[in-house]
Amino acid sequence: MARIVMKFGGTSVADLDRIRNVAKRVKAEVDKGNEVAVVVSAMSGTTNQLVAWCQQLSPLFDAREYDAVVATGEQVTAGLLAIALQELGQEARSWQGWQIAVETDGAHGKARIQSIEGEELISRMKQGQVPVVAGFQGIGPDNRVTTLGRGGSDTSAVALAAALKADQCDIYTDVDGVYTTDPRIVPGARKLNKITYEEMLELASVGAKVLQTRSVELAMKEHVRVQVLSSFADIPGTLVVDEEEVVEQEIVAGIAYSRDEAKVTVRRVPDRPGIAAAVFVPLADAGINVDMIVQNVSADGTTDVTFTVGKTDFLRAKAVLDGVQKEIGFAEIVSDQNVAKISVVGVGMRSHAGVAGTMFKTLADRGINIQVISTSEIKVSVLVAAEYTELAVRALHTAYKLDA
Amino acid sequence: MARIVMKFGGTSVADLDRIRNVAKRVKAEVDKGNEVAVVVSAMSGTTNQLVAWCQQLSPLFDAREYDAVVATGEQVTAGLLAIALQELGQEARSWQGWQIAVETDGAHGKARIQSIEGEELISRMKQGQVPVVAGFQGIGPDNRVTTLGRGGSDTSAVALAAALKADQCDIYTDVDGVYTTDPRIVPGARKLNKITYEEMLELASVGAKVLQTRSVELAMKEHVRVQVLSSFADIPGTLVVDEEEVVEQEIVAGIAYSRDEAKVTVRRVPDRPGIAAAVFVPLADAGINVDMIVQNVSADGTTDVTFTVGKTDFLRAKAVLDGVQKEIGFAEIVSDQNVAKISVVGVGMRSHAGVAGTMFKTLADRGINIQVISTSEIKVSVLVAAEYTELAVRALHTAYKLDA
Repeated sequence: MARIVMKFGGTSVADLDRIRNVAKRVKAEVDKGNEVAVVVSAMSGTTNQLVAWCQQLSPLFDAREYDAVVATGEQVTAGLLAIALQELGQEARSWQGWQIAVETDGAHGKARIQSIEGEELISRMKQGQVPVVAGFQGIGPDNRVTTLGRGGSDTSAVALAAALKADQCDIYTDVDGVYTTDPRIVPGARKLNKITYEEMLELASVGAKVLQTRSVELAMKEHVRVQVLSSFADIPGTLVVDEEEVVEQEIVAGIAYSRDEAKVTVRRVPDRPGIAAAVFVPLADAGINVDMIVQNVSADGTTDVTFTVGKTDFLRAKAVLDGVQKEIGFAEIVSDQNVAKISVVGVGMRSHAGVAGTMFKTLADRGINIQVISTSEIKVSVLVAAEYTELAVRALHTAYKLDA
Repeated sequence: MARIVMKFGGTSVADLDRIRNVAKRVKAEVDKGNEVAVVVSAMSGTTNQLVAWCQQLSPLFDAREYDAVVATGEQVTAGLLAIALQELGQEARSWQGWQIAVETDGAHGKARIQSIEGEELISRMKQGQVPVVAGFQGIGPDNRVTTLGRGGSDTSAVALAAALKADQCDIYTDVDGVYTTDPRIVPGARKLNKITYEEMLELASVGAKVLQTRSVELAMKEHVRVQVLSSFADIPGTLVVDEEEVVEQEIVAGIAYSRDEAKVTVRRVPDRPGIAAAVFVPLADAGINVDMIVQNVSADGTTDVTFTVGKTDFLRAKAVLDGVQKEIGFAEIVSDQNVAKISVVGVGMRSHAGVAGTMFKTLADRGINIQVISTSEIKVSVLVAAEYTELAVRALHTAYKLDA
């Protein structure tokens, strides 16, 4: 017997037939002797509709009202799934964020969970009842409904799993697991049986958007075993777990890519102490996340500083720098939106040399020029021209022996 | 300066443009110097969709889950209207039933309001904020969402007006007031400026469904002045008030009709004490509302009992009586679904004789046979063949000098 939290995303509960299917899967887990709690998203399309209404009424809508409106999508699904479970003879009841309560901070629209009251739900699970929890939402210090930001139901599920001391948190979605890379680019990409939290974080943050990043951070912090699996196929998915659980660790777990970044080069910045701060503090003050940063060696008393930002922040970043050009005294800003970031991720590279070298050589052999390099303990990322994305991903997938 | 509760029904908030219009009307009332609270229904069509989903998942759905699902419709509208008001520069915030709190009994799906906490809302109104309250809902003793039954937002509005000690409760709808009869049948029907609670109750219960019956009962009990008016035209509507306020009372306020009833005659019931109970107690036990009842004078030791029930209850009523036929010993059940109930309503008939006589003579002059008669202090109702509905309504409208 295990205690399991099952989370179903929007496409898994898109209509009544799918909700009935979800009910069957949930009941099957209970029938195996498990204690089960469920977290649901809104039916797919619903949240987009509700968000659009808020935006159309007021581009600068009140986030508290937005939360009250948007959180209803999950409340509907929770009630409907409870009814579907009861129809199968499975005792169940729906729970809205404020009823449990899922207490969050007051940051409406992007609230963070602070605590979840788990005792009542545990006691009901022990009596055979399935709690069906509306994901994505909680209640703020002002006694108003809060939401956790898009994709927040993943975080709801992991936080609930922690509060319920669950053995596992199964995230049902429209893919059947985490792959060594995007199967649309590399048909021979393999599904991973296990992956560490750290690898999942790196893969998610560079574009393999299977789980909300925050949910993985939370799972790592709370040691919640997460499984990503398909709600449409009855096969095992990918387990996201502590490093100790991954016995036969591959050196490289996967290859990720992102076309969502733009490259900005600040040319001929006077090379003196404090100059990096002069460039990046104004960007941080404007709430712009900078990703890769490279500073060239100095020549004739000036240097070039290159960095990447999300494409959606690109114009704002340029405006911020234009505003401090005189003060800093750089020559000009050169930019390129036609770039892709390719990353090789794996906790094994901590103990294995040569991972970066293999990457650089593989790309050089294909004639792909590397524009920017950044590395972390478990990741090597390079920026290349966007047109080489598929070629680079395929070559690296083969080079690290990831092909099926 | 007055304190006003404004209530907008589903067609008044059917899309974003209409919600913007509602926001303008609300702001106009505030700009006149009034304190305003708003109660909203779900966008038209939403509640039907949510109800259909529950029914399709389980014909015998759990009413507690139904409430959780269906109450979201009003929550969406409340948040959207608050955003629309803010966009006009009008301070506003949405309130869900559990936040106020609107405390109800535990009868999920048809809950009754027990108390409303009004102090917080009054204090905010005094500071210029408009509370936008999700209608149709409250919170039960089990800390779960309850709903008040279809049309319940009218009752929410009246109860809120009582709790806020409001001077008036304006119910905005898709008609511009209460008419002397259905204008689709009598083009010369007049809009009434004022009508008493009692008359409104009789008109509502016989088919002029402008307000939910319970909302009128509550308004009468709490002495809340209600105005029914159009959300699409900027003209005064009909005031529903205490009898003392209606100075120049007409004898007859209006003519109502209903085609929703069926006639049932139990033939040759043994005429002995307790026989009426033997017929009607089983029907009451089955939750079937009986409306008009007539018992013929006895002949040869038996009598005929005729009554009407809602058409939706007709088959169940017949089944209940079939079940007790042996026990009671009646001969047969004869029924007719092709009937209409025509009612003449007016508090003035308490002090004026001859109202019923005028009705019977008017119908007789047109050759319309009266099948059943029932009377109350302020109403005379007759059952006639359905084909005579329009003729009867028109003739009576003229006979009581109600034509414009």
